Amino acid sequence: MPRYRAVVAYDGSGFAGFQVQSKRGVERERTVQGELIKAVNQMGKNPQPAIKVVGASRTDTGVHAFGQVIHFDLPFDIPAEGVRKGLNTILPRDILIKEVLLVPDDFHARFSSHSKRYFYRVSTQDYVDPFKRVYTGHFHWQLDAKRIEEALPDLIGEHDFASFAASGNETATTVRTITRADVIVKADEQELVFIFEGNAFLYNQIRIMVGVLLEIGTGRRPVHDIVRLIEVKDREQARYTAPAAGLYLDEIAYN
Amino acid sequence: MPRYRAVVAYDGSGFAGFQVQSKRGVERERTVQGELIKAVNQMGKNPQPAIKVVGASRTDTGVHAFGQVIHFDLPFDIPAEGVRKGLNTILPRDILIKEVLLVPDDFHARFSSHSKRYFYRVSTQDYVDPFKRVYTGHFHWQLDAKRIEEALPDLIGEHDFASFAASGNETATTVRTITRADVIVKADEQELVFIFEGNAFLYNQIRIMVGVLLEIGTGRRPVHDIVRLIEVKDREQARYTAPAAGLYLDEIAYN
Repeated sequence: MPRYRAVVAYDGSGFAGFQVQSKRGVERERTVQGELIKAVNQMGKNPQPAIKVVGASRTDTGVHAFGQVIHFDLPFDIPAEGVRKGLNTILPRDILIKEVLLVPDDFHARFSSHSKRYFYRVSTQDYVDPFKRVYTGHFHWQLDAKRIEEALPDLIGEHDFASFAASGNETATTVRTITRADVIVKADEQELVFIFEGNAFLYNQIRIMVGVLLEIGTGRRPVHDIVRLIEVKDREQARYTAPAAGLYLDEIAYN
Repeated sequence: MPRYRAVVAYDGSGFAGFQVQSKRGVERERTVQGELIKAVNQMGKNPQPAIKVVGASRTDTGVHAFGQVIHFDLPFDIPAEGVRKGLNTILPRDILIKEVLLVPDDFHARFSSHSKRYFYRVSTQDYVDPFKRVYTGHFHWQLDAKRIEEALPDLIGEHDFASFAASGNETATTVRTITRADVIVKADEQELVFIFEGNAFLYNQIRIMVGVLLEIGTGRRPVHDIVRLIEVKDREQARYTAPAAGLYLDEIAYN
């Protein structure tokens, strides 16, 4: 059975996250994975057993993706470009398959990944733009971008990010490596865009990091509070989690 | 009673158009006007008789606005800036009051207007971007932008636009004056943006004009078919109406 890898974009505002949520085997809410499974199985002519779809990242309710990566096996050979077109014809319009490649059997969307890039859009308007309400986090307190820029390098490197993991986190270790942490100030659009790159991230880690950075920006936290938070390894110290709407899974890199 | 004029932006994707649709006095669908009436009456402390909200343009289901204009009378004097903030606090997040001005009693959002500007976004991707699906019209046929640019001046001036009015049009005359008709080609974003300005427009006129221009762009219609369509005054000749999702009421000018 040939294995395919696909790059998937979706508008997260209409989904209860990426992962299928089932209760007693009954799918209860609309998920990205649920729609992908339906489409892939329709394309594979409803085979038994059903084709599985494995995603690289289980994005939460309301989180968007420009470059989620999935893999799946089809019961027969179809050219990759035909798979892309076929799936796009079947899928609802809030999911788009951007690229499909035929890959070796041992490729795994999650375990073969080498790094991930996310960005987070913050709208700093006094009242939120109607066209941004589900595409940005909204934060209307006065921010000093210089303080945020000074704080960002504190995240870079291999650290124990236990203070930045939400309680749903189930990974064995909370040590992660961040290789990029930037902010772009778009003054005209009254937006800040954070960019983070790393080997992997803990549950809600980026939204908690953004929350801390925004509190640093207002002066509520000292500029180098991230150093202290890494030290204390206490999730109670960083409670504000920035809203899901601003988060985008941008790109996943493979070797 | 002081009269206020407000500039209103809304994401049309969650509304059954601007105008309240009632059946036996019961509001049946979510409309922009319905939400504005609720907010203004809440701000006016639920007066009897209820405060009316008059809009400049009855945008259709799915049509967006950056600059809809409304007027309403409040039973007491509140500074205009306080009205703006108060309404934004009450209104749902897909409607935003951008500006409020105190105006003379004879100001009328619809009848005092002098010209209107709309734009229309067309996505020309093969499959539609999930983030554009409710914010652009999608047209994936090959377009020659030069043909469209050559056709656009044919719309300028005072013409009988009967061929460009949908069947719901109820105005006494179908003569209108268009002062601007442009297209911007955004090659990077695979988008065309049409801009139209005129004294007023007929029901669905812009969406029908865009439909004709796109058919000129594909070569299905001759470049100067608009001259013929203005001549024949026959709405059966221009059947394709571009989707509501791409249309934006951008700005309304007053004397």
